[in-house]
Amino acid sequence: MDTRTLPEKPAYAELARLQVRLHRLHHLGSMVSWDRATMMPPKGNEARAAAEAELDALVHRLQTDPQQAEWLKAAESEPLDDFERANLREIRRKWREANALPESLVEARTIAAARCEHAWRAQRVANDWAGFLPNLREVVKLTREEAQFLADDTGLSRYDALIDRFEPGMRSAELDRIFGDLKQWLPGLIKRVLERQAGEGVITPGGPFPIEKQKELCHALIRLLGFDFQGGRLDETTHPFCGGVPEDVRLTTRYREDDFARALMATIHETGHARYEQNLRRDWLGQPIARARSFGLHESQSLAFEMQIARSRGFMAQLAPILSRAFGAHAAFEPENLYRCFTRVKPGNLIRVEADELTYPLHVILRYEIERPLIEGEIELEDIPALWDQKMRDMLGLDTRGNYADGCMQDVHWSEGLFGYFPSYTLGAMYAAQWFAIIRKSAPDLDARIAAGDLSPAFDWLGANIWSQGSRWELPELVQRASGEALNPAHFRKHLETRYLG
Amino acid sequence: MDTRTLPEKPAYAELARLQVRLHRLHHLGSMVSWDRATMMPPKGNEARAAAEAELDALVHRLQTDPQQAEWLKAAESEPLDDFERANLREIRRKWREANALPESLVEARTIAAARCEHAWRAQRVANDWAGFLPNLREVVKLTREEAQFLADDTGLSRYDALIDRFEPGMRSAELDRIFGDLKQWLPGLIKRVLERQAGEGVITPGGPFPIEKQKELCHALIRLLGFDFQGGRLDETTHPFCGGVPEDVRLTTRYREDDFARALMATIHETGHARYEQNLRRDWLGQPIARARSFGLHESQSLAFEMQIARSRGFMAQLAPILSRAFGAHAAFEPENLYRCFTRVKPGNLIRVEADELTYPLHVILRYEIERPLIEGEIELEDIPALWDQKMRDMLGLDTRGNYADGCMQDVHWSEGLFGYFPSYTLGAMYAAQWFAIIRKSAPDLDARIAAGDLSPAFDWLGANIWSQGSRWELPELVQRASGEALNPAHFRKHLETRYLG
Repeated sequence: MDTRTLPEKPAYAELARLQVRLHRLHHLGSMVSWDRATMMPPKGNEARAAAEAELDALVHRLQTDPQQAEWLKAAESEPLDDFERANLREIRRKWREANALPESLVEARTIAAARCEHAWRAQRVANDWAGFLPNLREVVKLTREEAQFLADDTGLSRYDALIDRFEPGMRSAELDRIFGDLKQWLPGLIKRVLERQAGEGVITPGGPFPIEKQKELCHALIRLLGFDFQGGRLDETTHPFCGGVPEDVRLTTRYREDDFARALMATIHETGHARYEQNLRRDWLGQPIARARSFGLHESQSLAFEMQIARSRGFMAQLAPILSRAFGAHAAFEPENLYRCFTRVKPGNLIRVEADELTYPLHVILRYEIERPLIEGEIELEDIPALWDQKMRDMLGLDTRGNYADGCMQDVHWSEGLFGYFPSYTLGAMYAAQWFAIIRKSAPDLDARIAAGDLSPAFDWLGANIWSQGSRWELPELVQRASGEALNPAHFRKHLETRYLG
Repeated sequence: MDTRTLPEKPAYAELARLQVRLHRLHHLGSMVSWDRATMMPPKGNEARAAAEAELDALVHRLQTDPQQAEWLKAAESEPLDDFERANLREIRRKWREANALPESLVEARTIAAARCEHAWRAQRVANDWAGFLPNLREVVKLTREEAQFLADDTGLSRYDALIDRFEPGMRSAELDRIFGDLKQWLPGLIKRVLERQAGEGVITPGGPFPIEKQKELCHALIRLLGFDFQGGRLDETTHPFCGGVPEDVRLTTRYREDDFARALMATIHETGHARYEQNLRRDWLGQPIARARSFGLHESQSLAFEMQIARSRGFMAQLAPILSRAFGAHAAFEPENLYRCFTRVKPGNLIRVEADELTYPLHVILRYEIERPLIEGEIELEDIPALWDQKMRDMLGLDTRGNYADGCMQDVHWSEGLFGYFPSYTLGAMYAAQWFAIIRKSAPDLDARIAAGDLSPAFDWLGANIWSQGSRWELPELVQRASGEALNPAHFRKHLETRYLG
């Protein structure tokens, strides 16, 4: 979008120019943030934190530049086309978000979160809930204040105002409905699947799996999945993520010599995120309309790759010979056995990030049911351990009493002040199932084509309906346009029943 | 330096705060610049260039903030201590440099240099001087304008104004004296050394030398040389450099399977730069007073490591067993033979960056004798090839007619508008010799101690007299304080005579 050639739209042009500047500053921030996780030596930490904070403050100043208010008003009556009008809507959204919060509160929350997260790393290992509490209390206090400002600005409830930053338009009433539905049938489904899997023989692949071989394998596989190495990289971190910018996507993963499956699936998962970014419309880049629509939608891409494609029976036909080439022939690498390995349900797992496809949503619902009332002020931090234990018991039959490390202290999110984000994970899983229901309609032979290495039905549909759409539409409209209906958990249920009981 | 606690020095405090901001922005720029050279995939280039340009423009705006003029004036009469006064001097220097040039000229020169440098990469390979000329003409035109602005601001000649940015206080009259002295004795010395070396047998180590082994070797060696991997990294690039920030120093090198010596010496060279940065005073960081004093002084550190330490006879005793462990025993790895390899003079070399210690200064003097009159308008671009050839003939007896690629097109500097920088390389070699003359006085057994792996006499002296001094003193005063005299080429001569004829 060349903003220099918009003489009849001077206010819009100013706004668009400012967005380009923000896009460039965001580029710097993304890259040093990736570097911090992958490359930075420990002594660089303090200077890096200061440099990143300087950039954040600068970005915040630009985002809250009062001139924008005038431009936003003036641009309304300028002769904008549909794209520009959609872009203006997104600019206004960003502007409102940035201006809803006093700078002092943002700073205080950033500092509190950094302190809490830093201490959490050791406290979690030490199972030290009492030590964690004072830091977390400060984070929650400031997040509640933040949520109140956002609520005042939007007319939403506190928690809804937080969700809205991740899933524009999503409300807790809707989540109650969706998650309520899941809670009705998912525990029963898990029970039936466990009974069925109890009778299945599974050969576990035996390691060690040399790290260098795993690296080659991951590079080869994500190339197969369309990751463009001319516009991105794959490196190592403690926690896999997809970072960078659309023009230069930085994937990370982690390798363990005793288990190739984790690195493999984590890398494939991040590749879904990466392809969304790598296929956002190039001619819009720099403007908010070009960006990925929501966190849940982003997760729908990573889960499309990990759950819909890579854990499918068809994909195992592709994977089996690649694994044999990498690690040598092994009975475990027989396609049907691989499929069993990759769809094995492990209900005893206390840890969300290690949970299987079936139990994962229950981990998310548990967090949602705790963080929503926490932010709304209906419960306090002291209530969490007992609530956590009760819900783990009710939903998964697991005991977490006294085990904070693998219980309510296991996630980094709350210590970082990231409330309202957990639902996106399961929304993503449900969106992904909904996309693949449509894709299967137009390509009933999808599994056979995946088995033959032809992923084009999936990629073509995702490219046309999700990736290239950026933020052109509001989220509900995008979902409607893409799939002909609103988010419908029935597709997720059908996907799980077909995969695990079919 | 905590700038919040300076109530009696409000103007100085404002200036110091601004410097901290610039230091943080510089951190971002350094890191993405390192990333561009080491990590960035090709499709990231355009977005990266835009992001870096955005940052440059921002930094320029801050550096030229007119409020600084008032603060600089007001700070003069504030009760500053010696350190603060020295820092104020450096802040004023930076401010003058930044304000001497109109922003439009800086932008035009940046664009012209980027275009020229980009085209030069292919043109050099194609030996295409005629194609190179128009781009270089634009760069030289704009650099002359730049030099004129700087000259008007400082009262110096054009070229002196350019040198002053790299070597504060150095003038071409002084360079004429120093380089004139070198030209008197260096060619004769080279001749005598060549006669002597003609009778020496040298066993050249035979490859291949596996890259992974070379990497391990380089990492181990620079750890031995004090590089702190907790505050830095070593990676690969096409052109080795020392980048990053003092808190997180990013070294790079390049490996060739047929030659371990290049990677080794390049890495050791960069380690000298790195240790200067890693040992600048921590409590001053963020302020100009903490920075390395000059480019020549920086080069004196890299050459202290490469030429004074690593190419010494003593160091070969350390190196020999390490090489045998890395690559297997080989007659070439005998210490005396290694010493001969690493001090072999190769006068037929047309390329500066591949030149040996003895002929290197002549390459620099040649460039100085061309770029000075070029910037002063005494010669034009068309005169360069003939001048180059004549000087190569006079000083090294080499013919470069028609060979632009290995002649006047071999360096990237001019295409990037980097005029006035070449002298720093040889000033660095001379400073390094001067430092080691002093170090040897207090540690007459230096070579034996290096052979025994004890580098502390050198490191202690450099730490106390160079690294920790930052920009506390003007360059001539720093040289005087460190060595008891001004820059004296006699030390360089003595060093070369001892090493090559001793």
